[in-house]
Amino acid sequence: MSTEFEIIKTDGQARLGSLMTAHGPIDTPAFMPVGTAATVKAMTPEAVAGTGAQIILGNTYHLMLRPGADRVQRFGGLHKFMNWPGPILTDSGGFQIMSLNELRKMSEDGVTFRSHVDGSRHELTPERSVEIQHKLDSNITMVLDECTPFPATEEEAAMSMRRSMRWAKRSKNAFIKRDGYGLFGIVQGGIYPALREESASALKDIGFDGYAVGGLAVGEGQDVMFDVLDRTIPHLPSNRPRYLMGVGKPGDLVGAVRRGIDMFDCVLPTRSGRTNQAFTRMGQINMRNARHRDDQRPIDPKCICYTCTHYSRGYLHHLVMTKELLGLTLLSWHNLHYYQELMQGLRQAIAEGALDAFTAIFAAEQQAGDLGPV
Amino acid sequence: MSTEFEIIKTDGQARLGSLMTAHGPIDTPAFMPVGTAATVKAMTPEAVAGTGAQIILGNTYHLMLRPGADRVQRFGGLHKFMNWPGPILTDSGGFQIMSLNELRKMSEDGVTFRSHVDGSRHELTPERSVEIQHKLDSNITMVLDECTPFPATEEEAAMSMRRSMRWAKRSKNAFIKRDGYGLFGIVQGGIYPALREESASALKDIGFDGYAVGGLAVGEGQDVMFDVLDRTIPHLPSNRPRYLMGVGKPGDLVGAVRRGIDMFDCVLPTRSGRTNQAFTRMGQINMRNARHRDDQRPIDPKCICYTCTHYSRGYLHHLVMTKELLGLTLLSWHNLHYYQELMQGLRQAIAEGALDAFTAIFAAEQQAGDLGPV
Repeated sequence: MSTEFEIIKTDGQARLGSLMTAHGPIDTPAFMPVGTAATVKAMTPEAVAGTGAQIILGNTYHLMLRPGADRVQRFGGLHKFMNWPGPILTDSGGFQIMSLNELRKMSEDGVTFRSHVDGSRHELTPERSVEIQHKLDSNITMVLDECTPFPATEEEAAMSMRRSMRWAKRSKNAFIKRDGYGLFGIVQGGIYPALREESASALKDIGFDGYAVGGLAVGEGQDVMFDVLDRTIPHLPSNRPRYLMGVGKPGDLVGAVRRGIDMFDCVLPTRSGRTNQAFTRMGQINMRNARHRDDQRPIDPKCICYTCTHYSRGYLHHLVMTKELLGLTLLSWHNLHYYQELMQGLRQAIAEGALDAFTAIFAAEQQAGDLGPV
Repeated sequence: MSTEFEIIKTDGQARLGSLMTAHGPIDTPAFMPVGTAATVKAMTPEAVAGTGAQIILGNTYHLMLRPGADRVQRFGGLHKFMNWPGPILTDSGGFQIMSLNELRKMSEDGVTFRSHVDGSRHELTPERSVEIQHKLDSNITMVLDECTPFPATEEEAAMSMRRSMRWAKRSKNAFIKRDGYGLFGIVQGGIYPALREESASALKDIGFDGYAVGGLAVGEGQDVMFDVLDRTIPHLPSNRPRYLMGVGKPGDLVGAVRRGIDMFDCVLPTRSGRTNQAFTRMGQINMRNARHRDDQRPIDPKCICYTCTHYSRGYLHHLVMTKELLGLTLLSWHNLHYYQELMQGLRQAIAEGALDAFTAIFAAEQQAGDLGPV
């Protein structure tokens, strides 16, 4: 058995589910905080878990370079290495090589690149990516895919997608099945419905434990993204988890859950926390803004996160202005909590068949803007 | 009543005591972590308290500029502003103006300077410093003194010290007595025993709730520092707490406690944590060193701090090499714990009349170097 997925309830296309892994269950729809280099930036693992996160994402590209997959394996895997006992999903490394590394060379076999750390030469093939993720002890391994650039012509997108499908097959062949560990395929095809359908169909034929939608949130806009989801999801198996990679803003998550997506990852809550942004029910606020200087209220009086129950906006503004490290931690903490609370709200709404009402309240609050003047 | 000090037991010159403040008791000898800008850098207040710290230090210079004393007062004082419910000692601002600010002008009245933040002009007099510390709600207010440069001739040191004594008197006059709040004087006089005696005597005549020894750890070396302590402490009242400002390394603390010092503050554990250094019973180790790369042991297997009970040297090395913020937190955490454990050990040793034995073990372990090879 691999990762077991159970659908508990549906509301429209949205699904309330549970994904079981060797390191525990994941309630879906789920948001995965990003722990790029074996740490969710500026947070202890206990604090991450405290926000409600059940699974985090690790980046194969960063980890294979530092500290190295063999080293992580000697430490007993990524869970032990970084003190995160819960489930971990790792990406394949492909996206980061293609977006961060300019010294890369693509071929049918895979991609070669030079390390940004020490200039050493590395090769990543579908087989090698699966092997690395195995050494990291990742609960959910992602297939290596070629990230189609955006924009791309239909012909470019087709060629790229078909190579990714051949790589998906090789990844499946390389993957060693174990209880509580799964392999996810990734649908590509750019913004072209026929290609997305072809890709979904190819992956279904190979057979995966879950299906990701890749190549979105790369500049195409929310409308196009939702349109691609609408035209892709019907072609995916209904009894497997669906993962929208690298997405997104709170509104993206709500819209994608409504379309049947079960899993998300995004750097937004932590990266925004490190750039002085706080997410609230009423939209995003910039803690550098001088209007917070004398504000004794928390970011959100209704939020029960550690930050909101212990610190004022005025104090957070002070930390941000003095560039104190605690400010990065407290804003990341709040934002991760906000994302997890949003997912909890979505799960609850699906359970009660109230997703439309939840969505309406969510949209109205976001439009209302900030909590108002002091 | 101000801050009440009780001496529970002595061992040689060393004293086990308790200092009662409006925000709780402080077991002495005590080490105060430095929370310069209303935060102990990279640490939550709960984590700081978890290491055993009962009191922290705030810097008047930084706080008067940002966020400003009036603002802190509006937030209910520094305790509430920064979520530290325990006792707080604040320095007078003088040391930082003189060491950090080159745009200063000294006179008999006080010191004027320009803010490093926005260039605005500020004046700090003994009266103003006491007023600011009152607004911060500091439990222990320090008198403004002129920090005698090192080295200084005896004449320079005498003139500077005598001005500080006049300022001490003005500080006392300005201080508003409240239950659980105290005012400490500061002995100056450089490395000149006669001046130190004169200074101690002048302060005693004014009468303070505690007596600090200032102007040390500025480059004179441990031998000279201990010599100054030996020649200063006998002239201080025995029934009041004694505070050695800005000190120091673990060996400095042990030596100073043996000479009758009750309180310390120093940036070393937190600053060292942010420069990849870890304190251990066996001396200091640099976590950047490649020998830690595959080391699955904690910094110190006998340490029960959060860092040592959850993370390996190999992981800490990885965090340091990747410049991850969590590394700064985990090393600061361990170092603060180390300092508090050292103070706890000293208190226990005094309680049991075993300070000589404690000191011998401390010295032997420090000399042994690191815990040895993997």
